[in-house]
Amino acid sequence: MTQPSDKALVSFVSVDNMMRLVHHIGIQDMLRGLTDYIQEDFRRWELFDKTPRVASHSDVGVIELMPTSDGEAYGFKYVNGHPKNTSEGLQTVTAFGLLADVYTGYPVLLTEMTILTALRTAATSAMAARALAPKGSTTMAMIGNGAQSEFQCLAMQAILGISTVRLYDIDPNATAKCAKNLAETGLTVVPCMSPEEAIQGAQIITTCTADKQYATVLSDNMVGAGVHINAIGGDCPGKTELVAGILKRSDVFVEFPEQTRIEGEIQQMDADFPVTELWQVLSGQATGRRDAQQITLFDSVGFAIEDFSALRYIRDQIKGTDYFFNLDMLADPDDPRDLFGMVGRAKQEA
Amino acid sequence: MTQPSDKALVSFVSVDNMMRLVHHIGIQDMLRGLTDYIQEDFRRWELFDKTPRVASHSDVGVIELMPTSDGEAYGFKYVNGHPKNTSEGLQTVTAFGLLADVYTGYPVLLTEMTILTALRTAATSAMAARALAPKGSTTMAMIGNGAQSEFQCLAMQAILGISTVRLYDIDPNATAKCAKNLAETGLTVVPCMSPEEAIQGAQIITTCTADKQYATVLSDNMVGAGVHINAIGGDCPGKTELVAGILKRSDVFVEFPEQTRIEGEIQQMDADFPVTELWQVLSGQATGRRDAQQITLFDSVGFAIEDFSALRYIRDQIKGTDYFFNLDMLADPDDPRDLFGMVGRAKQEA
Repeated sequence: MTQPSDKALVSFVSVDNMMRLVHHIGIQDMLRGLTDYIQEDFRRWELFDKTPRVASHSDVGVIELMPTSDGEAYGFKYVNGHPKNTSEGLQTVTAFGLLADVYTGYPVLLTEMTILTALRTAATSAMAARALAPKGSTTMAMIGNGAQSEFQCLAMQAILGISTVRLYDIDPNATAKCAKNLAETGLTVVPCMSPEEAIQGAQIITTCTADKQYATVLSDNMVGAGVHINAIGGDCPGKTELVAGILKRSDVFVEFPEQTRIEGEIQQMDADFPVTELWQVLSGQATGRRDAQQITLFDSVGFAIEDFSALRYIRDQIKGTDYFFNLDMLADPDDPRDLFGMVGRAKQEA
Repeated sequence: MTQPSDKALVSFVSVDNMMRLVHHIGIQDMLRGLTDYIQEDFRRWELFDKTPRVASHSDVGVIELMPTSDGEAYGFKYVNGHPKNTSEGLQTVTAFGLLADVYTGYPVLLTEMTILTALRTAATSAMAARALAPKGSTTMAMIGNGAQSEFQCLAMQAILGISTVRLYDIDPNATAKCAKNLAETGLTVVPCMSPEEAIQGAQIITTCTADKQYATVLSDNMVGAGVHINAIGGDCPGKTELVAGILKRSDVFVEFPEQTRIEGEIQQMDADFPVTELWQVLSGQATGRRDAQQITLFDSVGFAIEDFSALRYIRDQIKGTDYFFNLDMLADPDDPRDLFGMVGRAKQEA
């Protein structure tokens, strides 16, 4: 067997190793670490090469590539979104990601990102809530108790210090699953029978439902003054969770307006509906929460820079560990012009 | 260790396994097979989801994602282009690719594509030459004797039956390397000291040089009537090989005009410079070579559908072989909504 050169090898983090890494670091420390990395990148937002994700739609779902670069590293994520998958025993969202060296163009890290996306989405929500939610928030309503829900609850606990989560899902089995998974986290978990019940006493309302349709998870009269709404589930064309009336009463914060106007809750609004870019709040260029009565709304769709931050974090965390192995993924002949010779010599050695 | 489900596993073809597969199939049979797959996809060109590649440029190179889909499968290639890499002992171009199932969004194949891109590029050139070059062509001039050159020569031998290649490179060492690699292929190999010498008696002229600049590999008075020019090296903005005069005297054939007008030789010409799409020739909707005096020019930049065809070919060829192994790349919990529970159980099992 031909021995590949160092340059030919790409560090690979499998699902199994990602789970081992999560437990090695501790899930709450990992959520804090991811929040730090994402915030660091949001604060240097302007230097990133930004583009809306590249989507390939079909009748049953979408496959997307989300690339970005800070000029030194290049990252992209492959992610699908197939709401019908759940009923077939598959994940709605699976993902993997890659980090490369801009100077050489050579990939350096390949990793599972289904679990990592769940973590970075929760970390991003918590980062936004830390900047926008009422000070001293203690309670979150978690509407939609699917695959993302526990991560959201833990991130709000780790980063904001909330102590109570109030769970609701149209499927009581999902709520039971979420409650069971959160049983030993120190959170007070309150399963609820309706969205109205779930939002009682909550300073933060997180919506994360999965149906691809214009749904109304929250109606206008349910949302009182002073709350922060963390809207995760409205994240592609045709998929929203909130009625327009709520958006009109809220100050809306977004990741990348060009993408959010297509995919987020504000796809319901005119193209000039006023929004604030979250990175401007985090870098001190725009105001977040002004007063206690204001409704703040993070219309989150997920952006490539968050994945880039997560890839950076994993790259830094696996150094010196055995939570990865090397993949012989890049052909790298001794003489770079002699690719053919390398292939030929492999025959002689076979 | 948690045992991943079948769905969580993605077939992976390493560089080592790709080289073993090439020798198992035989490089000329593989070039023929790839040509068949690419031609099949060019003939159903209209049903593909097509988009110009997504490029991230830096001072020293470019990193690109090239996605496409036929509605059943989705494929993309990651590829870099760093001309300065050669002087640092690295490949100018490295690549890997992925094929996924559109219905589930789950990836099914990950493969090295540095070697595979060299093969598919040569197969595409030969496919175009079969449709456009003078009947009974026996001799090709190969100008630029870098990593792609031997593959071009072998593909023209395998698919068109050419018997002689005339090699030229500004670096005689590159020519010597190419000649040595082709020594046992049955081709008559003629190393030349100038482009003028190389094109003598050639019915096909292939240009494949790597400098990122507006270069003049062929000048206008060098190109006589009746030849086919296979222009590979002009493939990104600012990088061309031919003077405009040659383009004006030729009938120009392209892959995807929207991309070629930005990246190909015709970037020198007006936006309405007439071109013929190669797929229309291959599907009988447009004329290829009309007469013996005509200069045909394939202004090749490489398109995502060619990579898609190559990914399909590899997927089909590795079935039942041991030229791949499975990567635990996709988190796939038994209950798709219980991603968190899967992560949690991994801790207990650790």
